[in-house]
Amino acid sequence: MRDLDAHETYHPDKNRLHEDLRNLADAPLALAEVYPGPYGVVGFGEGWWPAELAREWIPAALVQEGTQFVLQGGYDLGEAMGAGLFAEAGGARVVRIGFGDGADVEIPPHPLAAYRYLQYLLHATGQHAEAEKVRQAVAREKEHLVPEVPTEQNPAKLTAWNLVERTPVWVVSDRYPELARAAQQVFARVAKSLSISPPPAGLEFFITALEARHEQGDPLVAVVLGDDERTRLAVEILGTRVDTIVELPPPQAEGLIAETMAYWYRLAWVSYYLALMYGQDPGDQEVLSRLRDAT
Amino acid sequence: MRDLDAHETYHPDKNRLHEDLRNLADAPLALAEVYPGPYGVVGFGEGWWPAELAREWIPAALVQEGTQFVLQGGYDLGEAMGAGLFAEAGGARVVRIGFGDGADVEIPPHPLAAYRYLQYLLHATGQHAEAEKVRQAVAREKEHLVPEVPTEQNPAKLTAWNLVERTPVWVVSDRYPELARAAQQVFARVAKSLSISPPPAGLEFFITALEARHEQGDPLVAVVLGDDERTRLAVEILGTRVDTIVELPPPQAEGLIAETMAYWYRLAWVSYYLALMYGQDPGDQEVLSRLRDAT
Repeated sequence: MRDLDAHETYHPDKNRLHEDLRNLADAPLALAEVYPGPYGVVGFGEGWWPAELAREWIPAALVQEGTQFVLQGGYDLGEAMGAGLFAEAGGARVVRIGFGDGADVEIPPHPLAAYRYLQYLLHATGQHAEAEKVRQAVAREKEHLVPEVPTEQNPAKLTAWNLVERTPVWVVSDRYPELARAAQQVFARVAKSLSISPPPAGLEFFITALEARHEQGDPLVAVVLGDDERTRLAVEILGTRVDTIVELPPPQAEGLIAETMAYWYRLAWVSYYLALMYGQDPGDQEVLSRLRDAT
Repeated sequence: MRDLDAHETYHPDKNRLHEDLRNLADAPLALAEVYPGPYGVVGFGEGWWPAELAREWIPAALVQEGTQFVLQGGYDLGEAMGAGLFAEAGGARVVRIGFGDGADVEIPPHPLAAYRYLQYLLHATGQHAEAEKVRQAVAREKEHLVPEVPTEQNPAKLTAWNLVERTPVWVVSDRYPELARAAQQVFARVAKSLSISPPPAGLEFFITALEARHEQGDPLVAVVLGDDERTRLAVEILGTRVDTIVELPPPQAEGLIAETMAYWYRLAWVSYYLALMYGQDPGDQEVLSRLRDAT
């Protein structure tokens, strides 16, 4: 299996995704305006998870006054266009962020776009302090995860080794909004690999899903994010049902959104290293832009 | 492999789940009162999916006037108790449906409880006509799915044969609220088997998740529910990536909720037959009631 500390292992990274990962916290964010509230936000494609995260301070999906944000992250088959009509009809201002028809603020398609959508939303709604907490948490994570940190000291490389030739099952504390499905999404996008997020009654799922065919548990790794009563119960249940359990220590971050995004950023690095171990380009392939065109 | 038309194949069904499946549409529903609106509904455990389905006519999760429904379906670690406080503080009436502390309306734990929660919510909010459409759609499905209908004419038995020793990936039209995760949940609960629901950007997931390890697609069956542009694209993508594609014809049902619930009911029968093919009791095991006690 490829050595993550050897230079040639990084050849498949034609898109130089490692630079985007490295520089994510420092990427400039063109923003001048704080929009008037109340706020509504809906998200499509690459924007679905930032819109879910934004529920922490923007509870409404749709509003008819103030500002309606539409995160146009692709694959929406025209739904993003319709999403602003309700708001417009009521007199709200519609701000389209992302790419494609009518985008007011450009965030190009990218495996790490979720971070950019979130930063923009935080600043555009005056949450500058929160945005800085998120930025710092990601910057802090980076120090431990970049390629020059050798495997034994690099949590992302070590986790990638734990996941190679296996299928993760995301066991995530409910406190992190939709992080299990965001992990499933970024793991597919970057590591080009399959993983499983449980349905909402996760504990029931963990107890029942492997009863008929125990062997289905053999390739599974329970990846645990967040320590609470529910994840501890899940570990107890899965301990005898899956091959291994990997608990990812919580990031150093101030606040729930920063902590959630820092976890996601670490999983992006894990996915990056795993793709390289499979000799895959962690960046996007041509087929994905054809999908964007088709939808 | 066990013959679904042979009597002895049904011996593992110690809980006689086939009777509950058969009689679901005719089960008496003790209900006298239509509660005053506006309505809010939140769901836990067995109640999570009915609460999502109810969004079709009860958009609010929490209200502070009118009636706040709390679906107490277990595993909530005390959250269900807290869920009514906000409503109570505002003067709304809280109606607890399900089991455990403070349940006003009893719906005991059961693999098919989702149907009962939905029926109760529809009647309790005056949606009697819609409730009858749901009931009729399930009753109509039953005619084709009961054990006495032989395999060649029984869609549930045929689908079970297609899924044996395989892992379903639920490819579901967005029009059916949260049906992919509800399918994953009931498939685990009754068939005791693992399945995969995609994250919200499903098409991206289908294109990327099997790139690094094509062999992961070998045991997968794409089970397609609902025909629209998005599911047709998914079939096109998955056609070269998974072992088989099974398209389930839409149920005969009037209205979205009835159609969604009828699909779910058919999958409950598929799961029932699959459990029997593995020699498993499709009903609940003791370990699940211990989980309920612990949470």
